[in-house]
Amino acid sequence: MNSVKEVGITVNKKDSFSEWYTQVVLKAGLADYSPIKGFIVLRPYGFSLWESIISILDSRFKETGHQNGYLPGLIPESLLAREKDHFEGFTPEVFWVTKAGNKNLSEKLALRPTSETLAYSIFSKWVSSYRDLPIRMNYWNTALRAEIKATKPFIRTSEFLWQEGHTVHATEQEAEKEVMLILGLYQKTIKEFLAIPTIMGFKSNKEKFVGAKYTTSLEGLMADGKALQMGTSHHLGQNFSKPFEIKYLGKDSREHFAWQTSWGVSWRLIGALIMVHGDDKGLIIPPKIAPIQVVIVPIFKDKNALIVKAKAKEILQSLKNAGLRVHLDDRDEYTSGWKFNEWEIRGVPLRINLGPKDIEKSQVELVRRDTGEKSFVNISGLKDNIILFLDKIQDQLLNRATKFLNENITRISNYDILKSMLGKKGGFFLSGWCESQICETKIKDETGADIRIIPFDGQEESESTVCIYCREPAKKMAIFAHAY
Amino acid sequence: MNSVKEVGITVNKKDSFSEWYTQVVLKAGLADYSPIKGFIVLRPYGFSLWESIISILDSRFKETGHQNGYLPGLIPESLLAREKDHFEGFTPEVFWVTKAGNKNLSEKLALRPTSETLAYSIFSKWVSSYRDLPIRMNYWNTALRAEIKATKPFIRTSEFLWQEGHTVHATEQEAEKEVMLILGLYQKTIKEFLAIPTIMGFKSNKEKFVGAKYTTSLEGLMADGKALQMGTSHHLGQNFSKPFEIKYLGKDSREHFAWQTSWGVSWRLIGALIMVHGDDKGLIIPPKIAPIQVVIVPIFKDKNALIVKAKAKEILQSLKNAGLRVHLDDRDEYTSGWKFNEWEIRGVPLRINLGPKDIEKSQVELVRRDTGEKSFVNISGLKDNIILFLDKIQDQLLNRATKFLNENITRISNYDILKSMLGKKGGFFLSGWCESQICETKIKDETGADIRIIPFDGQEESESTVCIYCREPAKKMAIFAHAY
Repeated sequence: MNSVKEVGITVNKKDSFSEWYTQVVLKAGLADYSPIKGFIVLRPYGFSLWESIISILDSRFKETGHQNGYLPGLIPESLLAREKDHFEGFTPEVFWVTKAGNKNLSEKLALRPTSETLAYSIFSKWVSSYRDLPIRMNYWNTALRAEIKATKPFIRTSEFLWQEGHTVHATEQEAEKEVMLILGLYQKTIKEFLAIPTIMGFKSNKEKFVGAKYTTSLEGLMADGKALQMGTSHHLGQNFSKPFEIKYLGKDSREHFAWQTSWGVSWRLIGALIMVHGDDKGLIIPPKIAPIQVVIVPIFKDKNALIVKAKAKEILQSLKNAGLRVHLDDRDEYTSGWKFNEWEIRGVPLRINLGPKDIEKSQVELVRRDTGEKSFVNISGLKDNIILFLDKIQDQLLNRATKFLNENITRISNYDILKSMLGKKGGFFLSGWCESQICETKIKDETGADIRIIPFDGQEESESTVCIYCREPAKKMAIFAHAY
Repeated sequence: MNSVKEVGITVNKKDSFSEWYTQVVLKAGLADYSPIKGFIVLRPYGFSLWESIISILDSRFKETGHQNGYLPGLIPESLLAREKDHFEGFTPEVFWVTKAGNKNLSEKLALRPTSETLAYSIFSKWVSSYRDLPIRMNYWNTALRAEIKATKPFIRTSEFLWQEGHTVHATEQEAEKEVMLILGLYQKTIKEFLAIPTIMGFKSNKEKFVGAKYTTSLEGLMADGKALQMGTSHHLGQNFSKPFEIKYLGKDSREHFAWQTSWGVSWRLIGALIMVHGDDKGLIIPPKIAPIQVVIVPIFKDKNALIVKAKAKEILQSLKNAGLRVHLDDRDEYTSGWKFNEWEIRGVPLRINLGPKDIEKSQVELVRRDTGEKSFVNISGLKDNIILFLDKIQDQLLNRATKFLNENITRISNYDILKSMLGKKGGFFLSGWCESQICETKIKDETGADIRIIPFDGQEESESTVCIYCREPAKKMAIFAHAY
């Protein structure tokens, strides 16, 4: 354990958000830097958080009829180039393999920036009849995109862990249904487990996935007022099935090009969780996703160490038997105060303090990580109380984040006010938009804010308002914000 | 479904082993080729087999105190070069990234051939005191090594899925204990779940891992008489801790270099499973590792389809409730005969045939994949019978493989006989060896056979025999064989 860690988080979240974030990532033991800029190493605690996310999403994908597979990490340049927009979008950030051993390769190989092109060249071999459809695949892997901008662990890295879904359908409608199914599944999971509310909608044409017909997205609001794109689900139309020749013989005995979708979430979700829930003491992990839900810290001196540790082990076992994820920190080489500090930084939602006096009274002290609130609970009813507390913490985190999101959506129709507000505070700004890319680009150039999302809900409002930039009649309601 | 698949496996295992293997891989839906030579795509069935292997090994790693993490896929050349033997061993097969977008990189980056160098440059930051030890990490990822020789799905590919363990210990003995713990864990798991017996021992110095102090290995015997290395566990001594400066302050207040191990198994295990257990009809998957343990094929005509399917669903549910991995194949567009064929190719250990007559008699027909044996079983006792049958199949596969291994280990002390036998048949040949690399290399050059393993067991025999090549007194008993 290094000395930096021992002193805890040294800046506060409000004033030094970026530095606070980095300290939490490093000191909570989530990740560490690697020798190459923009690449990070996941430590066990960070990886177990990712394993939690995998296990929840993976079971939902399987329940809804998807299957897992593996695709190679290298894609020949000629394949990547087959869909023009897609290639042009990705090529500035592709890592290229040009040599194997001392031999120059005859064709450059791209490190997977995303797998549409490779997957679809393979799928085209698997599809010949309507009976082969749908194909609904998911891949847990890594993507590599050289980041030129400032990098940030989990949020913007040149390599990231993610899942990418790729599906093939007989009809446009079926593909659309898939796009919405997945977006809904993402939103529900992120809300229910990560306790993060998001806004669902479309990306503008300028911001959509390169090669897609349209992109749907979930937009979250971080504690510093910046937006974070947390998951995307794309309708690819026939934009890829045509160049990759994914064709099927229909029931009508004719050949048709298939319709496709792709979708993904990445370890960004971990970054969002840190930014949304953390506080000045460190991480706060929602109980449903926490690798450790309850930590037991026995408080003892030499003379009563055996008794206290024995009781702590008994409690550990009974809580484990109840299916809770519990850790007993009975290390001798650290003080209780040091341990309190460590588990606070690591964001374990509930702590049990257990001392000799508590044992006499058949009680423990419970400490909530989210509120700091302490209470004594009888050991006989401990399990039920803990389950109750964990539920309360989960709810409280979601409520807090929802309140923050709602309070930071501002309806605005005056461009000068928007400009001056964007300079002062973050948040989401909901305005009318004429749907022209010229206005979108000018707003971006002048304020630094993007159209983050065109929300599914509330579009009827656009009929009675004007574009915030050109004052022509609005066609859409759009949310503008600064973003990660 | 393509037409090639419909016709089943078209060659037999005995006469056309290599072609048989490829057909099984493709027709059982385990994997497919990718656009780049030497790279394969895992299809859902193949990936679920890998998921089974992951889930079993992962829980064993965790039970024995290991933790998971993630390491970047790119390693700077200078880091890879820090341990000389290691670098020289890997450099001919490294894929090099030299460009990001249009920009040439100032330093070449290696695609992870294995992670010793990267992991240890990171570990050195994590270790300062004896209290930081041991570190016992595991990484599930991919490794990339450009294969120049003929490639073969799962057995020899330029990219493979695997796990790599990396540990750091305070003492040499503790590291040795770790090496043996893992080798034992591998052997037990491979025997118990994959039903494959292996021989445990040391690699010769010539064959050990580049950079290791010594390598221990598990050697399996494939049905064509060739050896396959199925798992390795290396004692790295201080060979890496010195160049990477993994040092700790001991309880004695002095600085010490740490001791290390690394170990891994890959998707080769899937290749072994195919080669060892498969037959002329296709794959045979041991029940304990089978993604689908039981497949239900309802046999119906239009008039009784509803009744038969309903009963099949009822059985499906009751077997699922009992924790069995069951699949119901009630597709209308394929005949029963076609389905029988498909599930035989895919190696599902047990099939339930259910027709209208069976329902009348409250019975099903059970068909064993390993022996083809059929029996009628009453529905009331179905679950217990299935569990019994699956156990029998698991045992039978292991017994058959063990018998084959034992029958194909030949004790031999005459080199001319060895040479002529190696030309005619495969198998393991156990002989005395003087421990000189000269004899080892000559045998390799003249017969194509390696020292596959120096078995832990039976070394006392070496005291009373001579080296099969030079006739000097033997120092070791070694197993020679042709190998994958």
